[in-house]
Amino acid sequence: MNVEAYLAERHAVVEAALARALAPDDGTPPRLLEAMRYAVFSGGKRVRPILALAACEAVPADPVRAVPFACAVELVHAYSLVHDDLPAMDDDELRRGRPTVHVVYGDALAILTGDALLTEAFRVAAAGARDVGIDAAQALDLVARLARAAGASGMVGGQVADLAAERAVADPALVESIHRRKTGALIAAAVEAGGVAGGATGARRAALAEYGAALGLAFQVADDILDVTAPTAVTGKKTGGDAQHGKATYPAVVGLDGARDVARDLLSRCLAAVGGLGPAAEPLRAIARFVVERAC
Amino acid sequence: MNVEAYLAERHAVVEAALARALAPDDGTPPRLLEAMRYAVFSGGKRVRPILALAACEAVPADPVRAVPFACAVELVHAYSLVHDDLPAMDDDELRRGRPTVHVVYGDALAILTGDALLTEAFRVAAAGARDVGIDAAQALDLVARLARAAGASGMVGGQVADLAAERAVADPALVESIHRRKTGALIAAAVEAGGVAGGATGARRAALAEYGAALGLAFQVADDILDVTAPTAVTGKKTGGDAQHGKATYPAVVGLDGARDVARDLLSRCLAAVGGLGPAAEPLRAIARFVVERAC
Repeated sequence: MNVEAYLAERHAVVEAALARALAPDDGTPPRLLEAMRYAVFSGGKRVRPILALAACEAVPADPVRAVPFACAVELVHAYSLVHDDLPAMDDDELRRGRPTVHVVYGDALAILTGDALLTEAFRVAAAGARDVGIDAAQALDLVARLARAAGASGMVGGQVADLAAERAVADPALVESIHRRKTGALIAAAVEAGGVAGGATGARRAALAEYGAALGLAFQVADDILDVTAPTAVTGKKTGGDAQHGKATYPAVVGLDGARDVARDLLSRCLAAVGGLGPAAEPLRAIARFVVERAC
Repeated sequence: MNVEAYLAERHAVVEAALARALAPDDGTPPRLLEAMRYAVFSGGKRVRPILALAACEAVPADPVRAVPFACAVELVHAYSLVHDDLPAMDDDELRRGRPTVHVVYGDALAILTGDALLTEAFRVAAAGARDVGIDAAQALDLVARLARAAGASGMVGGQVADLAAERAVADPALVESIHRRKTGALIAAAVEAGGVAGGATGARRAALAEYGAALGLAFQVADDILDVTAPTAVTGKKTGGDAQHGKATYPAVVGLDGARDVARDLLSRCLAAVGGLGPAAEPLRAIARFVVERAC
C-alpha cells in the first residue's frame, strides 16, 4: 500500500474532526480558543489519532467509530507539548519550526491552554462516544484507560521521571521505563481505543495491545535517533537538543547503532503482533514501517 | 441540624475516598505522588465533594453513589489551585497557611502535579462510576459535563477571563460572568453529579441544577468578601490580595455592602430552589447558609 497516500487521507479526517472539537462556543474566551487552535493546528503528523483509526479498521470496522478517542488522544498529546515547552520545563521556543505557545501567548495563557486541551480531551471522548454508537460501558472503560495512560502512572509520570533523569547516569532499563510511560502509553492507548471502538475482543484486542506497546516504544526510539541525526528542517527542532539537555535517550545509553537495532527489533514485534489480522491490518503494518524506517 | 457536625462527618468520608484515589501504584514516581498528596491533603474544607454527597442524599439516595464524582471534582479543584498559584499565574507563595506546591517542589513538578491531578480526576470518575453502580450512559454523560464545567467554556475559561480583567475596568455583569465560569461551574457540576448519581430526574434534577448555579456564584461572592474582611489566620491567604492584584470582584464593583446583598439574595435563591425537596435536602440548605453567613 501507499502509506503516504493513506496517511494524507486519514490526516484530513482527523483535521476535520479536531476542527469540530475546537469550534467557537459561547463560554470560551476568544483568545483562549485561538491559543488552543494554535497549539493543535501546528502541522503535526497526527500519528496517534491515525493509529486509532487504523486499529479500528484492522478489527475490521468503520474507522469513524474511533474518531472521538482519536481526537481525545491528539488533544492530550497537544496539551503535553504546550506544557513541556514552558520555560519551567524544557524551555523550548521553537516547535515544528514555529514559536511555541508560551512565546506567542505568554506563560500564563500557555499553562491554561494546556489545561483546557487536556480537559477538552475527556469531553470529546465522553460526549463523542455516544454519537458514534460505542457501548457506554465500554466507552467509560476507555475514558478510564485514556486517563491512566495520560496520568501519573503514564505520560505525566514518564515526564517526571524524564526530568529527574536529566544529567543523571541512565541505563537502558531506565530509558525504556521512561519512554514506555512518556510516549508509549498514549500511543498504546490510541491503538487500544481504536480497536475496542471497532469491537475488538479476545485475541484481536490482545494483538492490538501488543502492537501498540511495541510501536509506542519504537516511536520514541526513532524520535531519539532523529534528534541526533536529522537537521532542523526535518524535525522542526534544534538538532542534538536531547544531548544538550542531558536527556536519557537510547542513543545516549546504547549508541546510535544500538538504538537502530532496538528500533528494528520493535518493528519486527509490531509486525508479528498483527500478523494474524490479515489485510485489514495492512495500514498498521505500513505505519510501523514508516515510523521506524525513517530513523534507520 | 448541626451543620458543623455534618460537615465533619462527610469530610471524613471524602478524605478516605481521596486517600484511596491517591494510593501508591507501580508507575507513579514517588515524588510526583508526594506532590499530588501535598496539594490535595492541605486542610481544604471539601465543600465541593460534600455538596455532591449532600445533593445525592437530597434525591434521596445513598451518598456513597456520589463518591467517585465527588472525588473527581475535588481533584479538579486541587489541580486548579496548584496551577493558579504558579509564578506565571497569581504567584502565590502561601495557601491555607502553607507554602504552595511550586515553592516546595519547584515550578516544573508543580505544573506536572496539576496535570496529573486533572487527569486522575477523570480516571476516578470513569473507573469509580462502575464500582458504585451508576448507569454507564449516565456516568459517561457526567464525565462530559464535568469536562465542560472544568474546561475552556467553564473553569479554565473563567480563569482566562479573570486574568484578562486584572487592572481593567470591570462591571457587575463581567464579574458575574467570570465568577460563574471560574468558580460556579465546578460547584454546579458537583451538585448536579451528586443528584444524577443518586437517580435525580425531571423536577428534582432541575431544582438541584438551580441550587448549584446559585450556590456556585454565592460561594465566590462570599470568597470575595472574606478576601477583604478576614485576617490571614482565617483564610490562610493575605488579606486584601484580590485588590492588590487588581482582580475583578464583587466588592470592587458594588462595594462590600452591595456584595453582601448579592450573597444574601443568592442564598434565598438556593433555599427556594430546593424548598420542595423536603427534609432530605436539609444538608444542602445548611451548607448554603454556612457558605453565605460567614461572609455576611
